[in-house]
Amino acid sequence: MDSIKRWNIVDIPESEVLARRKKTLDRLQDEHVDAALFFSAEAIYYLIGGALKPTERPMCLILQQNGTATLFVPRLELEHAEHVGKLLDKVACYKEYIGERHPMLILVDLLTEMKLIDKAIAADSDGYPAIFGYRGPKLSSLCPNMSLVLKPYLIEEIQQIKSPFDQAVLRETARWGNYAHALLQEYTVAGKREFEVVDRVKVEATQVMLRALGPDFVTSGLVDAGAMAIYRGQIGLNSYFPHVVANNAEFKEGDNLVTGACAFMLGCRTELERTMFVGEPSPVQRKFFNHVTEAQQVALEAIKPGKKCADVDKEVYRYYKENGLEECWRHHTGHSIGFRGHEQPFLDSYDETGIQPGMVLTVEPGLYVKGVGGFRFSDTILVTETGIEMLTYYPKKLDQLICRVK
Amino acid sequence: MDSIKRWNIVDIPESEVLARRKKTLDRLQDEHVDAALFFSAEAIYYLIGGALKPTERPMCLILQQNGTATLFVPRLELEHAEHVGKLLDKVACYKEYIGERHPMLILVDLLTEMKLIDKAIAADSDGYPAIFGYRGPKLSSLCPNMSLVLKPYLIEEIQQIKSPFDQAVLRETARWGNYAHALLQEYTVAGKREFEVVDRVKVEATQVMLRALGPDFVTSGLVDAGAMAIYRGQIGLNSYFPHVVANNAEFKEGDNLVTGACAFMLGCRTELERTMFVGEPSPVQRKFFNHVTEAQQVALEAIKPGKKCADVDKEVYRYYKENGLEECWRHHTGHSIGFRGHEQPFLDSYDETGIQPGMVLTVEPGLYVKGVGGFRFSDTILVTETGIEMLTYYPKKLDQLICRVK
Repeated sequence: MDSIKRWNIVDIPESEVLARRKKTLDRLQDEHVDAALFFSAEAIYYLIGGALKPTERPMCLILQQNGTATLFVPRLELEHAEHVGKLLDKVACYKEYIGERHPMLILVDLLTEMKLIDKAIAADSDGYPAIFGYRGPKLSSLCPNMSLVLKPYLIEEIQQIKSPFDQAVLRETARWGNYAHALLQEYTVAGKREFEVVDRVKVEATQVMLRALGPDFVTSGLVDAGAMAIYRGQIGLNSYFPHVVANNAEFKEGDNLVTGACAFMLGCRTELERTMFVGEPSPVQRKFFNHVTEAQQVALEAIKPGKKCADVDKEVYRYYKENGLEECWRHHTGHSIGFRGHEQPFLDSYDETGIQPGMVLTVEPGLYVKGVGGFRFSDTILVTETGIEMLTYYPKKLDQLICRVK
Repeated sequence: MDSIKRWNIVDIPESEVLARRKKTLDRLQDEHVDAALFFSAEAIYYLIGGALKPTERPMCLILQQNGTATLFVPRLELEHAEHVGKLLDKVACYKEYIGERHPMLILVDLLTEMKLIDKAIAADSDGYPAIFGYRGPKLSSLCPNMSLVLKPYLIEEIQQIKSPFDQAVLRETARWGNYAHALLQEYTVAGKREFEVVDRVKVEATQVMLRALGPDFVTSGLVDAGAMAIYRGQIGLNSYFPHVVANNAEFKEGDNLVTGACAFMLGCRTELERTMFVGEPSPVQRKFFNHVTEAQQVALEAIKPGKKCADVDKEVYRYYKENGLEECWRHHTGHSIGFRGHEQPFLDSYDETGIQPGMVLTVEPGLYVKGVGGFRFSDTILVTETGIEMLTYYPKKLDQLICRVK
């Protein structure tokens, strides 16, 4: 039976959890720490492979150099953490926040018991962050003999290079973002309003996705699993605002539309964006549509391992200048993505980060034309040894991006 | 025409924005500051009455003692901020993050131009927080001659006492949470799965809510307006975990269910939770159902202005002890709510905060019984001069909380 492997992804495997922890401790080698502490819910989810939602009640994951993992949670999360957390040697708990004794003091008791209180310790923050009304002392103020090394960006840095598992999940998210986008285009019609279309898309796409993935697929994450395609308010003249928010506008013939589609799965997401039109576009709409697809092509061809992020954005900006489009520029070409909506590095003319295999980037130049609207295409790509792999793949030709007038 | 007032709420009025700013500056009176800076997107939304979503690109709102409000945004948000921001005297912008010059340096230029660089300044954080891959210098390191007073919790403190406008919005959110919950109960039936029910509820309840509120209602916020009712995974035996996450379980006859319902409107939300059953509950389910409704009643009767938060939680715990329920205790009685999911103060035995008129609190004792499930009722209440007003009002009797077996 060991020879029968499943190709479909249903959960974060223990091997991946172990690999993530190893990368984390390897990155800390030069710091010679005895253990690493993580207070952020995103970091804990990444390192235990099960989702515990953050509240005002502190949580902390303690990874020791000897490989043991100890999770510290409030009483109400004890059994749940034992149920969803992978490869945990111990789950310790305190009664409640505020509670008779502050949870940070109880964490200090635990660190004392673990003989870590006077050791060299890395931590993602100096205590639990002040979310949902939490207030508490700094770890450093409670542990004067600890050599504390703050590493707030450690997990983000590791996540810049996507593992083979992450890449597989990201490909799968692109599939369901694509499906949601197809529904978005089909259901968008003059006379309907934003919310009725995007909410219907979310329900139907998520149902299809979950049924296709099967009942073993783990839907729980810090964000619920699901597929969606949205406008975020970029409808008609409002598409001129690059970052407007959903406003339930009515679709009208001639509208410029900027879309966004993604699926959330096991902590990962890709990004897909298209420019669409309700009915036949005008000559000026066609002109900017063509320019923005050209600009995106310039960016896609510029991305190669060994080049810098800045190089890509500079080539896009050169295209804008050559075509007299500087007035329509509003933002850089893209950003890393995968575990968050935006991540470092940025495809920005002043980001000198080298492009490396395993990076996943959005490529999304935009043009914003007053009195006309916004034009943006975003595709998510994986950097390979020799170039790029397109993760998202929705059609890009103008006649493939028309929504019905009725 | 000035004599014709509208009673229905469609947006955050300018008078409310002005009142919020006045409260903010009044709270800073003892600090004798010349201006207050806000970097958090929640604070900016609260103080300008229009939503700008946070990214890696810093934003900052500058409120001066003379009453002027200046907003600092990235180029891509300039026109959008001018469009949605209320009572802004100026919107200044920088080109891009990373950009040729770091946005924080450009903010310092602006503060210099405004003659604030060497003044006494309050700020909600010492620079922009490191979200979405943003990295940048501290404000204090860039402005050595500024007397910087950090006030990270200022807005949260103001929001503890809900204004008459906030209260009116909260009442309206309770209406639509109630409607969503009614649909949740109607659509939950043995054989269905979690996502198909809760997604359908969200679509339908949101459509009804938006149509009932009318097209003038502003749907855009940091969270899109909408109504929902959910299980968050608390289905069957999994309802035993107080904070489990949605896992798309199938509803089965005999299941214990713990629900949650709310609507998001203009930055506010209430919380409604009920315990329901699929089909007829067993005697043991009835027993804990009755205990948890009793415990909630104890809490509701204990809340009065002048008492302490701790008093309420202690009375609930006394009920647990008197009835031999300590084993089933997992969390305190409730928390403030309105602008965030949880807020200070907490109905916790160690929170000595005095209960004051204008506070809005959830009252939600829970009982968690191994091998049976979870039992929790949450209602959101407004503290009045003499007692409480129930904001949420979904039925509580057992025979009103049964879902269909088929």
